[in-house]
Amino acid sequence: HQGKQEPTMQFLLEVVEILTNYVRKTFDRSTKILDFHHPHQLLEGMEGFNLELSDQPESLEQILVDCRDTLKYGVRTGHPRFFNQLSTGLDIVGLAGEWLTSTANTNMFTYEIAPVFVLMEQLTLKKMREMVGWPGGEGDGIFSPGGAISNMYSVMIARYKFFPEVKTKGMAAAPRLVLFTSEHSHYSIKKASAALGFGTENLILLNTDKRGRVIPADLEAKVIEAKQKGYVPMFVNATAGTTVYGAFDPINEIADICEKYNMWLHVDGAWGGGLLMSRKHKHKLNGIERANSVTWNPHKMMGVPLQCSAVLVREWGLLQGCNSMCADYLFQPDKQYDVTYDTGDKAIQCGRHVDIFKFWLMWKAKGTVGFEQHIDNCLDLSAHLYNKVRNREGFEMVFDGEPQHTNVCFWYIPPSLRGLPDGDERRESLHKVAPKIKAMMMESGSTMVGYQPQGDKVNFFRMVISNPAATRSDVDFVIEEIERLGADL
Amino acid sequence: HQGKQEPTMQFLLEVVEILTNYVRKTFDRSTKILDFHHPHQLLEGMEGFNLELSDQPESLEQILVDCRDTLKYGVRTGHPRFFNQLSTGLDIVGLAGEWLTSTANTNMFTYEIAPVFVLMEQLTLKKMREMVGWPGGEGDGIFSPGGAISNMYSVMIARYKFFPEVKTKGMAAAPRLVLFTSEHSHYSIKKASAALGFGTENLILLNTDKRGRVIPADLEAKVIEAKQKGYVPMFVNATAGTTVYGAFDPINEIADICEKYNMWLHVDGAWGGGLLMSRKHKHKLNGIERANSVTWNPHKMMGVPLQCSAVLVREWGLLQGCNSMCADYLFQPDKQYDVTYDTGDKAIQCGRHVDIFKFWLMWKAKGTVGFEQHIDNCLDLSAHLYNKVRNREGFEMVFDGEPQHTNVCFWYIPPSLRGLPDGDERRESLHKVAPKIKAMMMESGSTMVGYQPQGDKVNFFRMVISNPAATRSDVDFVIEEIERLGADL
Repeated sequence: HQGKQEPTMQFLLEVVEILTNYVRKTFDRSTKILDFHHPHQLLEGMEGFNLELSDQPESLEQILVDCRDTLKYGVRTGHPRFFNQLSTGLDIVGLAGEWLTSTANTNMFTYEIAPVFVLMEQLTLKKMREMVGWPGGEGDGIFSPGGAISNMYSVMIARYKFFPEVKTKGMAAAPRLVLFTSEHSHYSIKKASAALGFGTENLILLNTDKRGRVIPADLEAKVIEAKQKGYVPMFVNATAGTTVYGAFDPINEIADICEKYNMWLHVDGAWGGGLLMSRKHKHKLNGIERANSVTWNPHKMMGVPLQCSAVLVREWGLLQGCNSMCADYLFQPDKQYDVTYDTGDKAIQCGRHVDIFKFWLMWKAKGTVGFEQHIDNCLDLSAHLYNKVRNREGFEMVFDGEPQHTNVCFWYIPPSLRGLPDGDERRESLHKVAPKIKAMMMESGSTMVGYQPQGDKVNFFRMVISNPAATRSDVDFVIEEIERLGADL
Repeated sequence: HQGKQEPTMQFLLEVVEILTNYVRKTFDRSTKILDFHHPHQLLEGMEGFNLELSDQPESLEQILVDCRDTLKYGVRTGHPRFFNQLSTGLDIVGLAGEWLTSTANTNMFTYEIAPVFVLMEQLTLKKMREMVGWPGGEGDGIFSPGGAISNMYSVMIARYKFFPEVKTKGMAAAPRLVLFTSEHSHYSIKKASAALGFGTENLILLNTDKRGRVIPADLEAKVIEAKQKGYVPMFVNATAGTTVYGAFDPINEIADICEKYNMWLHVDGAWGGGLLMSRKHKHKLNGIERANSVTWNPHKMMGVPLQCSAVLVREWGLLQGCNSMCADYLFQPDKQYDVTYDTGDKAIQCGRHVDIFKFWLMWKAKGTVGFEQHIDNCLDLSAHLYNKVRNREGFEMVFDGEPQHTNVCFWYIPPSLRGLPDGDERRESLHKVAPKIKAMMMESGSTMVGYQPQGDKVNFFRMVISNPAATRSDVDFVIEEIERLGADL
């Protein structure tokens, strides 16, 4: 049997060779970020690379070619000039952790088959709760497949806290419940309202100031209005680090209102939670210790490989109460070890991927101070970017003042538009600028930065910095590249 | 910068060395499956292995030790004698695929950042739908973080199909809806009923025959009863391969009833879906082509590394309709490529882990015929096991007849209980036998097999075979090991 396995083990080592070359090239600025092709081109089949599956096996040599081509036509998210997503960069220790995780190939639902990982999760969650500021790190939590599911958990748990009978009797057992979140918040709160049976119309959007932060008075007014209609305000989401502006809602003021009207306070810190690791920046989350639950994605600002998202809950027992179904065919109470370590019945999942190890390993390797350094660096870089573009000719900021997070939002105004007066014509033209520049960026493979419209604002660039490989010169490069590509638009 | 990275690249290669040694030892039968320790022992810290996180970094040498220790105190789920879960084994090509995936470190939500993976997912889902039997492989689908979430999708989509206004108005916009599933079905259907706002009381459990298969007449009777009460029967889950018995519900007869009463038919083939790849065994899923949606986890019967689960939907557009929130700040319509390839707005997640690549790569390497061979082998092995224990002294089958899937369920009766008459005393004693033997198995590290009670049946062993490394002699070993460990109970 072992003789039979050797060729495949050899194959595995050849894949490692491909992967380490890929990693080395990714960090090399002369490498293109991507080699763009349209879907139909890849589907028609590039030379020697056929995506179709067939009945008969391919040789391991061909599989190696497939691996190379998969990387060749993909996007190098670890490249120092990749600024497209909230999750960027490639941490080697995190990567090693993920390779170990897939080699261990196990599941988080019981201590029985994941003893070490289950304990690592527990200790790490406790540490995160300490950083949130809950006394003694008490409380509960779970790692989930991404921030959207973590946010969904928070809504479920809030409902269970106030109306536990919904679990057995359905939404008919509750009055008309309303939820509140900022118009700038992540769409996952809306997805949760739809999925969990609240209905998106019962999610009330809150006005924000020009920097994208919730206006607390608007929350209170809308709570009162909902109550006057006979609805029951139940849940408020405050965002710590919005997707586009990187805004931090004023948590303390929101918490006051939540306490006054007996509502659940969730803080969506998927993007901004990492700042809790920085002594310099954590004040932006002041009041988070008053939250009932918190979402925090180490795979964003902290550079942990995808996926790694936690939902933290202040009150112990709610997660279990909300989700447990007591399936004794899965979670046997009569095991020889302390079965309170089995996590399966806390989850809405059954099997659950091991997302903890890479994070734990990075924390060991960096220490808290290492994460802090990374975060402070990223914020310094974005301050550099902000200072660079705010008075630069041809650039216009989307909002005034230094960004709270690493999000820097700006328009590039090509020379041809600079003379135009504000109005529909200019707006329509400007709306097309960012997509055109982005397309050229992707076709040249030089850099990647996201763009989007927001409310009544036409398409603008949102540059975010979470990439540990990025330096000032990379940030400078992007600005010059935008100018180069957009000069003739 | 590159000079700075070299020590970490060297570290990565040393981790690879640790991992490949681990894999080789895993396939060696003289290696223990686990080195069992209680939670408090691991928490107190084994020699040189401290789970606690600290402020200061550790050296890369210590990180290597941590990696070794993590594996040392874990469970070898790829060991030829690991039969504890539905997901077992370690496929090297799949593992290579997962290593590549984590190196690429990207996200499934847009073609922009995952062009190759998005297309692989699309082609693979189509192939799976062809195997389900939907004409031309038409329809829709998505990979999700496990069977429980896939099943949750099916309930959401069914609700959207019949009562689309629930998305905006909540459950108040629908009449009292009821769902049906077998008393032997997976608890995720119940979790979905609770989470989505139906309430677990509105999930009606169906009686099964002695083999654990739904009795269609019971479904029809309960549908009629629900209608008489004024409720609206909406959704039926038929299981293809139940967790404990491995039973296949009679899909065609259930489909007849679903058509007659206009209900959504979901087939939970998380465990049994793989049999669609076997010409010999796929008849067990006859009628699946009449389902409206199907869950199928390649990470179970097909040996794909965790996690890999698909939900397939017959009607195109429902997934998008149900889940889209049109967040144009995330999914820009004005990109240079065909944005219908962006999958993000179909999902309840935002970011989504790349689960497709390892599966696609294994399919390339094995061909459909390779999966077929693996599945046929596992079913042959379980037939061998069944034949071995059914008339063996000291063993008693939980149900009569050859199992439909690889689940073989049996009691071991220690000599001390063999003379006892059936009754409470024998039942109580027998209930403790499997947990005791299991504990001894884990302490000796020789093998792992699951046990559980079911309905009024006391704890019994459920042995499942999905491990490609297992042979007849491994199956024989387990039986003899149970006899050895249980002889003096």
